[in-house]
Amino acid sequence: MTDQMHHVALASRPTGAPTAENFNHEAKPVPVPGADEVLIKVHYISLDPYMRGRMDDAKSYAAPVPIGGTMEAGGVGEVIASNSPDFKPGDFAFGMLGWATHAVQPAKMLRKLDPAQGPITLALGVLGMPGFTGWHGLTEYGRPKAGETLVVAAATGPVGSMVGQVAKSLGLRTVGIAGGADKCKLATDTFGFDACVDHRAHENAADLRKALAGECPDGIDIYFENVGGKVLEAVLPLMNNHGRIPICGMISWYNAGGLGAGASDQGLTGPAIWRTILIKFLSVNGFIISNHWDRYPTFLAEVGPKVAAGEIAFLEDIAEGLENAPDAFMDLLQGKNVGKQIVKIA
Amino acid sequence: MTDQMHHVALASRPTGAPTAENFNHEAKPVPVPGADEVLIKVHYISLDPYMRGRMDDAKSYAAPVPIGGTMEAGGVGEVIASNSPDFKPGDFAFGMLGWATHAVQPAKMLRKLDPAQGPITLALGVLGMPGFTGWHGLTEYGRPKAGETLVVAAATGPVGSMVGQVAKSLGLRTVGIAGGADKCKLATDTFGFDACVDHRAHENAADLRKALAGECPDGIDIYFENVGGKVLEAVLPLMNNHGRIPICGMISWYNAGGLGAGASDQGLTGPAIWRTILIKFLSVNGFIISNHWDRYPTFLAEVGPKVAAGEIAFLEDIAEGLENAPDAFMDLLQGKNVGKQIVKIA
Repeated sequence: MTDQMHHVALASRPTGAPTAENFNHEAKPVPVPGADEVLIKVHYISLDPYMRGRMDDAKSYAAPVPIGGTMEAGGVGEVIASNSPDFKPGDFAFGMLGWATHAVQPAKMLRKLDPAQGPITLALGVLGMPGFTGWHGLTEYGRPKAGETLVVAAATGPVGSMVGQVAKSLGLRTVGIAGGADKCKLATDTFGFDACVDHRAHENAADLRKALAGECPDGIDIYFENVGGKVLEAVLPLMNNHGRIPICGMISWYNAGGLGAGASDQGLTGPAIWRTILIKFLSVNGFIISNHWDRYPTFLAEVGPKVAAGEIAFLEDIAEGLENAPDAFMDLLQGKNVGKQIVKIA
Repeated sequence: MTDQMHHVALASRPTGAPTAENFNHEAKPVPVPGADEVLIKVHYISLDPYMRGRMDDAKSYAAPVPIGGTMEAGGVGEVIASNSPDFKPGDFAFGMLGWATHAVQPAKMLRKLDPAQGPITLALGVLGMPGFTGWHGLTEYGRPKAGETLVVAAATGPVGSMVGQVAKSLGLRTVGIAGGADKCKLATDTFGFDACVDHRAHENAADLRKALAGECPDGIDIYFENVGGKVLEAVLPLMNNHGRIPICGMISWYNAGGLGAGASDQGLTGPAIWRTILIKFLSVNGFIISNHWDRYPTFLAEVGPKVAAGEIAFLEDIAEGLENAPDAFMDLLQGKNVGKQIVKIA
């Protein structure tokens, strides 16, 4: 009898926030690896905001997940069968394994992990796609200079916390934005932000702007954009001339049309944004980290030792069991997780 | 008796398009130059879209013209008195001389011109601020590569025509946008654009986009932004991944709030623009040329000989007399001029 595996498929496309009905838990036979392919038993998967975009069929930088297809995710696991000379059973690897207990992938799409160098979950967060996103976006498009002021939202998340810590190490004033007093305390105590503003304590962009202005007496030189909406509206008028805005995401706009809660028509019209870019001589750059893996070795060489030495902190929020992945994902989109959201599969 | 001069002062701030009532023609005594200052008899002044912004008191990158103050303008003229060793009567110079028959300026704010090297009006257009704006924005933020496609509006204007000609010389496909069949013919015949789309023949952004798409079969890699509005809305969905948008102006939005004629709510919301920057990995840079005069000698060395050799074409539209400056300026904002708008003063 063929062994069975489980996966979570996209049952239907959400309108607005995803619900349990958008996901199907299914069983199917464990696939057999073909030539140069590897079968992996998944130990952990990563949940990330970008996955919300993959649930829509709108034109974007990546193809949508097809209805009935396995939800995408980066994951780490153990090789249990291999038709590639590069992997043998017992090896650990990172790859796009999906929301699933098992996955077959071409060997060239996998990256081998050395468990002696730290927990394999690091490859999903601080030393994986989110950490690399923060480091690359800041260093490549943010062009940080000592003495400047940086603002980043989702400051305790795996992207924001990397951005803040790298910026701080380069001599910038770092101001985080997070949801709730507990997260703000984490941002300053654990991740070393100079200050953190609780966006939930400021209902609209104008109020949030006042609070930010108080923490950014010299204005904002770098706004690392991962949320959009109210935060963007609050930040734009505070940007200094020649400021930089790397854009890696805009989670507040993933679930809904419109401007998002707390944002207003005035500050986020196209002309208002375009004019701000002009009159403040801003440099705004969108990017997706998957176009930049050529810099990953540099990132790993620079940041890996700092993580090992405890100089760069990280937080993981680990849900248990594939069956709980949809709930964990829905919570993530509402900011209920604390730190890098991971699901333990095996 | 003291000699009299004339100038045009800002009488009141316009709401929407400027009218004759916003300008005052006034006479006053010719000023006397102080230490290290120079008195100039103005021969020509330049009229440029940016001046519309100076008539408002909204926060921008430059201080507004005060009510009662002389309208700003770059101008060229002859030195008639000098308290600086750097200038003597009979010299010609460029400076911010204003809408006026005479001007006193500190010597260090003036640039000496050599009339043997060409008509002094060149310093107002093709070899002045507009030409330099086009060259700098294209080469610095556009990062042009042979084989790519560039789009620029106001293609027969002094900025757009420079952008198109420099891009063409670098091996790009150049597609202009201009108002009317005559200007489109000028764009292709005089300025060498591969194609030109008449925005007046396409009432809304969707129609304009179809026409542009036909002329840009490989998409758009560089959109040199000087207009905003309908053109921006038409262009954004046609941008290629990793496209670049230098922004030097947005004339369609200078006179009015809102999105401008022919633009729609859908394509120019803040979220729509922000999302496009992200999913196409765009690089968007606002700039004002006055921050970049350090590159001017390079520009002059590179482009000056090409202008002298007739390899870079230019067009001047010269109005006669300071008293006609307001009308010429109001026409400029409606695109009624053909080529660089200049006013002959003396």
